[in-house]
Order: sequence, then structure tokens, then C-alpha cells
Amino acid sequence: MSPVDLQESVCAANLELASSGLVTGTFGNVSGADRDAGHFAIKPSGVPYAELTPDHMVLVSLETGGVVEGDLRPSSDTPTHLELYRAFPCGGVAHTHSEFATALAQASVPVRCMGTTHADCFRGDVPVTRALARDEVENEYERNTGLVIIETFTDGNISSEEVAAVLVANHGPFTWGADAHEAVARSAMLEMLARMECTILALAPDAPRPAAHLVDKHFLRKHGRDAYYGQG
Amino acid sequence: MSPVDLQESVCAANLELASSGLVTGTFGNVSGADRDAGHFAIKPSGVPYAELTPDHMVLVSLETGGVVEGDLRPSSDTPTHLELYRAFPCGGVAHTHSEFATALAQASVPVRCMGTTHADCFRGDVPVTRALARDEVENEYERNTGLVIIETFTDGNISSEEVAAVLVANHGPFTWGADAHEAVARSAMLEMLARMECTILALAPDAPRPAAHLVDKHFLRKHGRDAYYGQG
Amino acid sequence: MSPVDLQESVCAANLELASSGLVTGTFGNVSGADRDAGHFAIKPSGVPYAELTPDHMVLVSLETGGVVEGDLRPSSDTPTHLELYRAFPCGGVAHTHSEFATALAQASVPVRCMGTTHADCFRGDVPVTRALARDEVENEYERNTGLVIIETFTDGNISSEEVAAVLVANHGPFTWGADAHEAVARSAMLEMLARMECTILALAPDAPRPAAHLVDKHFLRKHGRDAYYGQG
Amino acid sequence: MSPVDLQESVCAANLELASSGLVTGTFGNVSGADRDAGHFAIKPSGVPYAELTPDHMVLVSLETGGVVEGDLRPSSDTPTHLELYRAFPCGGVAHTHSEFATALAQASVPVRCMGTTHADCFRGDVPVTRALARDEVENEYERNTGLVIIETFTDGNISSEEVAAVLVANHGPFTWGADAHEAVARSAMLEMLARMECTILALAPDAPRPAAHLVDKHFLRKHGRDAYYGQG
Repeated sequence: MSPVDLQESVCAANLELASSGLVTGTFGNVSGADRDAGHFAIKPSGVPYAELTPDHMVLVSLETGGVVEGDLRPSSDTPTHLELYRAFPCGGVAHTHSEFATALAQASVPVRCMGTTHADCFRGDVPVTRALARDEVENEYERNTGLVIIETFTDGNISSEEVAAVLVANHGPFTWGADAHEAVARSAMLEMLARMECTILALAPDAPRPAAHLVDKHFLRKHGRDAYYGQG
Repeated sequence: MSPVDLQESVCAANLELASSGLVTGTFGNVSGADRDAGHFAIKPSGVPYAELTPDHMVLVSLETGGVVEGDLRPSSDTPTHLELYRAFPCGGVAHTHSEFATALAQASVPVRCMGTTHADCFRGDVPVTRALARDEVENEYERNTGLVIIETFTDGNISSEEVAAVLVANHGPFTWGADAHEAVARSAMLEMLARMECTILALAPDAPRPAAHLVDKHFLRKHGRDAYYGQG
Repeated sequence: MSPVDLQESVCAANLELASSGLVTGTFGNVSGADRDAGHFAIKPSGVPYAELTPDHMVLVSLETGGVVEGDLRPSSDTPTHLELYRAFPCGGVAHTHSEFATALAQASVPVRCMGTTHADCFRGDVPVTRALARDEVENEYERNTGLVIIETFTDGNISSEEVAAVLVANHGPFTWGADAHEAVARSAMLEMLARMECTILALAPDAPRPAAHLVDKHFLRKHGRDAYYGQG
Repeated sequence: MSPVDLQESVCAANLELASSGLVTGTFGNVSGADRDAGHFAIKPSGVPYAELTPDHMVLVSLETGGVVEGDLRPSSDTPTHLELYRAFPCGGVAHTHSEFATALAQASVPVRCMGTTHADCFRGDVPVTRALARDEVENEYERNTGLVIIETFTDGNISSEEVAAVLVANHGPFTWGADAHEAVARSAMLEMLARMECTILALAPDAPRPAAHLVDKHFLRKHGRDAYYGQG
């Protein structure tokens, strides 16, 4: 993919994020990677969504983390995206402050897998990271945010391909996918699942979880070798 | 009705579902039957709502369950629709993942009949099915989803004409009606009733239920021989 | 006012109700009275809001309750409106199934006056009626709905001019005002107050109520002889 | 800035408030000050937002509180705005009855700083004032509303520049900023934070608060000398 095509795709994904109701003000950012070219494109820092154009998207090197092309400063969360691309086999990353996912992140409450709507998208609970230590906040905060996400998946033995979302404690959600568009779609799905989890926790916190065979059935109906959903 | 007319009607009902805010992504599906012709038309699997056209609607035999006409694969939930048409005297079926009805389904909490808004549409509680057993999930899952709905109505001695809606445990709602449009309208009504039930359960879970004579008054004001609502 | 002007005003108020998000389907109805002419105009029964035109509004006699003019059957709730016009000095009545006011009505929970937003509109709690007895439901149900509202205000020594709204138990809200438009505006305000009351009851059910002097200050700042709000 | 430019800016900010979903009816008001010119412009009392034009904005003297220019009566809350301009180094003030901030104000529950979304905007909890005494309500109510806000910040040793928002007990929120537009943007942010706080209080009232170093990191990333967010 040419750099211009990548910038157009990532700009469009950022605008999808803005029109989805998942962001307030200039909060949130989406990036998309071209691993063959060795870079990813990301939203510039603090530019209103209404003013974004493809050439605003900043190209950042996957190897060095430095800006490859672009006149604007990249999103302040760029080092988080970089660490996720290095650790996870994904092609797009999205970060929002969507209301219910953020509320759960602030309360350090995971989004449990309580049914098939969740299992259609994520094969298991969306976890919450531990809080960062003082030193991790004061030095390389955004990079450490990426590292604590990776630690959560490694220590919890969670596949980043089966559960492509996380809540960063006291902060908010990150999602990822094959490209920037899929990352945004998963942010929207995560917000809906977070809303439903808040409702369930309020009404019936001890409601039984779905059996593993039901979760597997739905996840595998849409993902992987034996998927039979869609026209593919 | 000609197959083309049925496809147009069912396509329009699917678009109503999409514009009603009851679905996210490609979730959800609506079908409509022509019993004289011996088939029903249903949304194809995984096609974005924005791209749906009438000729995408797949015609499925009510007798064999096989595709009669159409180039696309029918909704993966087709065997559920088929069983409902076989057991219930309805002409349309809708399935959504609408937020509050799904949250209640995931928590295995029924939508109780708590007032006249509910009774105007459904004459009694909207029940929740039992969870499916492992074998029922791993073999003919979608057909078994239909069978457990029918079992819920048979065992609970509930009329599918008086209560034209159900919550499938850990999964989500199905509704039905005279045609695809009525099925969709009832999905919208069910979602509103589910929202109200969540509010009531949070505030006053022990609030007294309405008397049977009030429920009957409202249901029969709008349905059946002595209805006096509307211009009919 | 000519009958045609009244019909236009009442039709417009019904359309305001529909566009306000307070109604689902054909639920709800608004009327407006011309006391000099001895009649009120009301929405016809079961006609979709999108199809309403001024000449659909049915004129009903304030004296006999009979239809004075109009080809359509008036709202099935017409006898409720009639009793309210007879007992209360108002010029418009609105009935909705708005979500949160209805949820509170179904739970028989009043909308308490918890602050100045409420006091700007209603000088005290919005009460809930008692449930109707079996006989009151089976005979002249809609008329008895009006009578139980009036009983609530009489027995509770509540001024229908200071608190121009009620929740009918297990059913939903009615509001009234100087004309049909003010009745609709108060339905919108009541719904917002009901939403806030649900939030307060969930978070802090024992939060202290505002002092009477604060409630009076806000109500009288906007209503009555010493009002100093607005340009009047 | 010329008086006309100030009026245009404040009119636009009032319209932003109306289109933001933070107000119902004629509730709410925004003002903006020109300290060099010695006055502020404020919305007139009780005029529908849809009819507002720049020349409706009333100019009020920062020294005397009297109307300097304008044919209409200024907002009844003008004395509150005046006291805030006198005590706080701000250039714009906004007042809404936005649903969740108002519900918390009515319940006298502060908006705690529970995460980075809050800390990006406000460096600490948004406090609630004490209730006004009878005498304070009956005499110079609106001026005393301003004074109790100032008292809350003085007694609580809170910086009005670090926490540019307050909940007035039993009443609702006020926010302020560099100009009228920033005051409105903070009202929108406060409402979102209030919604999230309501969710957290319902789900996990004892969830641990974020560490001070995380709050400081986010606030100082966007505000003050060492800010590195945006393109500035």
C-alpha cells in the first residue's frame, strides 16, 4: 500500500470514530500499519476531527518510533500504539474515551463475556490492566501504557487475536484488528458490550455465565477455519 | 404474493430494523413467510444493511428448509426461523441483539409485564428459555435454538399469539407477528419494555404487578374481537 | 378561536409530541380546549403520527363528551381528557408512554421534587394515583382513569395549577397546561425529571430534599404575580 | 474586542450550548467577558434559543452589575455570573441543567476524579456547594449563588483554574473558562464525567481512585508550561 493510501484509510477510520459517538472533543485516536513498508499512520495530536485530512496523518517508523513523514506532531499516545504493533500481530489500533468502557476502566471492572453478542466478537472477558506505578507514569508514560497492556495478555495467557481489546485501569479502552477500520468497529462493539455489562451488573451481578461451548460456538462461527457466517 | 413482492417486503423490514437502532454491524435478521407459496424470504448472512437489496433476500422452503431461490447464503439463523414458522401461526420473525433485551437475555431475567405499555403489546411476561445443553450447541445449534423457544412456550403454557416474543438465554430476543413489519415493530417495543424493566428492577424490584384485569383490558382493547382501539 | 385554528394547533402539538421522542408507535395523544366554544380537539385513535393532518383532529363536546365534528373515532383516552377539562382549569392535556415517567408509574414511585429544575416547572412532587379497582377497569375504564387523577389531587390537597402532572399507577403520565403546546412541553420536562429521579434513587435515595423556600423561590420566579423570569 | 464581536461570540456559544443537548427549553445561559472594556455579554432571560441573535446579548458592567447596552432583560442568573467574574480569573461562564450533572447536584454528590478523562480537564473532584440558608434564598438569591460557589473554592482550597466547574446543591452545574466557548465545552465534558460517575457509583462505589501522579500527568500533559498535547 502506498503511504498516501494508508493515510487515506487511517483518516477515514478516524472520521468513523468521530461519527460513531465514541469520542468527545479531540479525545481518541486511530492508527493503521503497513508492516511491509515498516511504518504506521496515526492521527496528529489535538487536531479537531472536523479538520482532519489524509495528509495530516503522521507516518511513524515501526522500528525506531520516529516520525517518517508529516509536518504535525503525532498523537501523544503514539508510543502506546507502537508497543502494541510490536507485540501483537495486528494492522490497526484504536483508542477512545467511550463512556461505558471508560467508566468500567475507571472502576477497574472487566467486561465479562456474558453471552453470544460478546462471543461473536471476543472469545472471553476483556481484561483490565493493573494500575501503573509512579515511576511508570512519570517516565515514558505512553510507552509504559503499551507495555502494561502486553503484560496483561502475557501474564493472563490471553490471545490478542481472540480478545482484541483491553481496558487500561483508570484510563480507558484500546482495541485492535486487521486494519484501522476493524479496530474502530471493535471499539464500537466494546462500548455496546460495556453498556450491557453495566446493566447486568446492576440487575443480576450473579447471573450465570454462558457455557464455554456456547462462547466457542459463536466465536468460531465467525472466526477462523470453520467459520460459516457471511458469504466468504 | 409473488416472490418478488415478498422479497421487497422483507428487505424493507430488514432496513427498518437497521434504522431503528436495534442492531449493531451486521447483527440481526428478519424474515417473512408466504405460507400459500410454501416459503419464506430471509436476509442473507453477513451482508451489511447498507448494501441490502430485495433480490438479496433468500427464499427458503418451509417444508425442506432448503434454499428455493437466491445466490447468497441465507442468515446463519435460518433454521431458528424455520422452526418458529413450523410451530407458531405467524408470518414474520425478527431477531436482534438490541441492547437491553440482550442484557436481560444474558442475565436470564424475563421482561415482566409491569403495566399497560407492556399489556398493549404482550399479554403477560416475555419468558427466557433455558440454556442449551452442550450437545444442543455443538449439533444443529440454530435449529435447537428454535426448538428451545417452542419448548418454553409449550411447557409454560404460553400462547405465541398473546406473547409474540422471547429471550433466548445468554443470547438475545426473537419476536414474531403477522408479517415481517409487525415482527420488527415488536422488536422495537420489546426493547423499550426491556429498558423500562431494567429501570424498575433497579429502583423498586418489589413493586406490585398490575392486576390481571388491567392487563386484559389493555391487551383486548387493541387485539381480538372486542378491540376498540384505532379506526378499524 | 375557530374550530379550524384549534385543530391546527392541536395537530401541531401532537406532532411536537411525536418529534420529541416521548412516544413509540401510535402511543400517546394531545388535546386542546376552546372553553368559550364548549369543545376540545383531540388526536384520532390509532392513526400514525406521520399521517396526521389538522382535519383529523376530532372535536368533542365539553358538556356531553360526544363527537361534535370529525369523521374519525377520537383517541380511546378521550373520556380521561374530558374529566380533566371538567375538573381542572386547563386548556390542554397530553398523555405519553415516555420511558422513565412510565417506568416510575409502573413501579408506583412518584417524581419527587429534588431541586430547582423540578421547582421551575412543578411546585412539589408529581404524585402517583392509586391502582384502579376491578370494577373501575371493566366499566368506563378511561373515564375512571380521569376520576382517579382528580381524586389524587383532591385527597392530597394538591393544586392542579402548581403541579400540572400525574403518574397513573401501572400506566403512565398525563400533563396539562394553558394549551396543548404547554401540555406537551410539560410532558418533555416531566420525562427529564423522571430520568433524573431514577438516577438519584439509584445513587443516593436518602439525599436530602431541597428546602421549601428554595422550591418556592424557583416556582414563583417563573409563575404568578411576582415572576421576574423572561421578558414579560 | 468590540461589543459587537463579543455579542457575536457569546451568541454563538449559547447556540453551541443549545445544540449540545445540555439544555431543555429556555434553561441555561452563557456569558463572555471583555475585561479591558469592563463588561460581559449574557443571554437574555427566557428567550428561546432558536430566536437568539447577537444583538439580543445584553452587556452588563463588571463594576456595577448594571445593564450597559441592550433592550432585553438579562438572564435572571446574571448576578451569579457577575460574582464569578469578580472572584475568578476567567473570561466565560456557562450554566446548564444538564441531566446527570443536575441529578448529582440535586443529590449533593460531587463528581469525583476517577480517571484520566476527568484529569485531562479538571485536576481533582468537582465539588458541591452547601445548601443556601433561607435568608440567602429570599434576598439576592442569584448573587448568593455566586458567593456560595466562591466560598466552596476558598474554604476547600481549590483552584478555580485547575477545577473550572462546580455543582450548586439542589440546583445544577456552572463551568467557566478562558472564554464563552471554553465554558460551554467544559459543561459538555462535565456532563460526560457526571454520567460516568453515576455508572461507577452504581457498579463499584468503592473502586480505588487513580493515584495523584496519574491525575497530575494527564492534567499537566494538556495544561500549563510543560504541556505536550496538541500542536501548540
